[in-house]
Amino acid sequence: MSTLIKLAVIPGDGIGPEVVAEAVKVLEAATVADDVTFDATWFSLGAARFLETGDVLTDEDLTAIAGHDAILLGAVGGVPGDPRLADANIERGLLLKLRFSLDHYVNLRPSVLFPGVPSPLAAPGNVDFVVVREGTEGPYVGNGGAIRQGTAHEVANEVSVNTAFGVERVVRYAFAKAQARPRRHLTLVHKTNVLVFAGSLWQRIVIAVAAEYPDVTVDYLHVDAATIFLVSNPSRFDVIVTDNLFGDILTDLAAAISGGIGLAASGNINPEGRFPSMFEPVHGSAPDIAGKQLADPTAAILSVALLLEHLGQTDAAARVSAAVTADIVARAALGTPRSTSAVGDAIVTRLTD
Amino acid sequence: MSTLIKLAVIPGDGIGPEVVAEAVKVLEAATVADDVTFDATWFSLGAARFLETGDVLTDEDLTAIAGHDAILLGAVGGVPGDPRLADANIERGLLLKLRFSLDHYVNLRPSVLFPGVPSPLAAPGNVDFVVVREGTEGPYVGNGGAIRQGTAHEVANEVSVNTAFGVERVVRYAFAKAQARPRRHLTLVHKTNVLVFAGSLWQRIVIAVAAEYPDVTVDYLHVDAATIFLVSNPSRFDVIVTDNLFGDILTDLAAAISGGIGLAASGNINPEGRFPSMFEPVHGSAPDIAGKQLADPTAAILSVALLLEHLGQTDAAARVSAAVTADIVARAALGTPRSTSAVGDAIVTRLTD
Ligand SMILES: CC(C)[C@H](C(=O)O)[C@@H](O)C(=O)O
Ligand SMILES: CC(C)[C@H](C(=O)O)[C@@H](O)C(=O)O
Repeated sequence: MSTLIKLAVIPGDGIGPEVVAEAVKVLEAATVADDVTFDATWFSLGAARFLETGDVLTDEDLTAIAGHDAILLGAVGGVPGDPRLADANIERGLLLKLRFSLDHYVNLRPSVLFPGVPSPLAAPGNVDFVVVREGTEGPYVGNGGAIRQGTAHEVANEVSVNTAFGVERVVRYAFAKAQARPRRHLTLVHKTNVLVFAGSLWQRIVIAVAAEYPDVTVDYLHVDAATIFLVSNPSRFDVIVTDNLFGDILTDLAAAISGGIGLAASGNINPEGRFPSMFEPVHGSAPDIAGKQLADPTAAILSVALLLEHLGQTDAAARVSAAVTADIVARAALGTPRSTSAVGDAIVTRLTD
Repeated sequence: MSTLIKLAVIPGDGIGPEVVAEAVKVLEAATVADDVTFDATWFSLGAARFLETGDVLTDEDLTAIAGHDAILLGAVGGVPGDPRLADANIERGLLLKLRFSLDHYVNLRPSVLFPGVPSPLAAPGNVDFVVVREGTEGPYVGNGGAIRQGTAHEVANEVSVNTAFGVERVVRYAFAKAQARPRRHLTLVHKTNVLVFAGSLWQRIVIAVAAEYPDVTVDYLHVDAATIFLVSNPSRFDVIVTDNLFGDILTDLAAAISGGIGLAASGNINPEGRFPSMFEPVHGSAPDIAGKQLADPTAAILSVALLLEHLGQTDAAARVSAAVTADIVARAALGTPRSTSAVGDAIVTRLTD
């Protein structure tokens, strides 16, 4: 039985193309044995494309991308402060537009502290949790506005929109995830004492869905308290479910304590598969080190493992995870840092030997 | 010259009364030499009062409190999950109502890692920064609502309101603070790439005010990136200025990395003195350890130092800081933990010896 997977590849800006090149190498090496072929279409999108053409993401781009089985994205964004990009907002117009248009309501971000990886925490313990961040609602909906802009009387509002439909589906996904993990624990993170309407909706839905998962234990933390636990006792977490903005903040902190943003993978997932899901490292385009083979492609390669798992290629996903873990453990023994492609090559070698 | 200071004391719930008792002891001991007298009025407010009378904060309470020169608050909030408090929301109805009614637009939260204090970070470096959190706007305004509540079609919104007036005054305060510190550095934290209207307002005002402070260096971080730096390189921060919600999150994380919430002081400040400012430890009421003399009163006592400084009693403020620092350094040498009142007594002894 042979499988053909149509893959949209968006290398993006800065270090994006470098890390994506390694991720694609690994993707192919991991699946040859299973007779899986990737038909990859490369999309030139990001700050560079905008500067060339003035387009961030056209309807044609979006339709073409939507016709694929999955998306692999490197990183997008130009040099911070570049005046030519001042009005572009590549993040909103490209990254968030893809997440919203393709209904990526689950933003899945695992945090694992691999053996031998240094953490900024003195005693991190066993860090192994996953954040299920809502991806299509909350303060990210783009429902803001301003009056009297530029005057002393300016008022700028941002509206966080939360729906029972949107919260319930991501909460259900998080409970299913928790049930499939050994510890079966779910933590809702919100700020119910201040954001009383949104908080109440999240809390009521978690309580209601919990009744269907009697084997999953549940607790609640305010977002401020959650940051304390992330540095004082991160091993208390198993599955965290939270809104779009809190999830954004917590997953960067989670990446930092579990070895840094160079290892943090993510999936923007449409679980029903109505739209292609998109896999990307949590890190940005880091233009300052771009083109120098200095970037660590591990986060992009771990995102490939999430992609394979999402597509049902669980054996290949496990092989990638195992090869990356082995490579990470071996790193400490190396005296010198390796180039971006050397890391990819080393992982490919582990997969094919 | 003798000074009489009218002080409103709100011990509150849980460990609040215990830590406030020590803070008041220290306040009096620190000022006798300066011929300062405190005329203290004690207000019974919090979950206990609500359960007794059904009132959270009456107009009479508010008017009476507003007639004082400063407020010292312990902590408010009942036992989490207490069904009798389900609809009370003591936080919104009392703590936030005081901050908003008394126009506490500066929420000042210093983070200092004192010598000998353990941090969860392996290599914290020199942690010494202050967060200037806006206190009267943003997602805290209580401008939320829901339709079709309790149905599958519920929509719950929360509006973050930001005004040029409100942002400019807190940004000016932060620049003045930065200018008065040796490093003269200010970091704006926001999420301008997503919350584009509010973010743009903050960014434009920081740029405009920066022109008046050429000796203060300025940079910008997205809130997610700021959490990474707080654990990977906290010594990079000097003054952080940020909105109400980001400030809430960052200051709990900041407290965690600089020795924990037991040492974190805060001031809710109305800089012009039109209303009394309010000083409180960042920690909560911790009902689980209340009444056992287990709470660390240090955060409350450091809040007294902020109170004295705000009232212009700078010598007394410096004496309290010095006594607390000396006590903290001495703690490591002690084998056993001390009771709440023993900590207060030790600090009083240092002040009066
Ligand atoms: C680039 C930005 C819009 C994005 C977000 O806020 O979601 C990023 O921080 C992330 O976490 O993927
Ligand atoms: C209790 C709560 C409303 C409060 C806040 O969110 O401001 C607290 O977390 C704080 O930081 O003082």
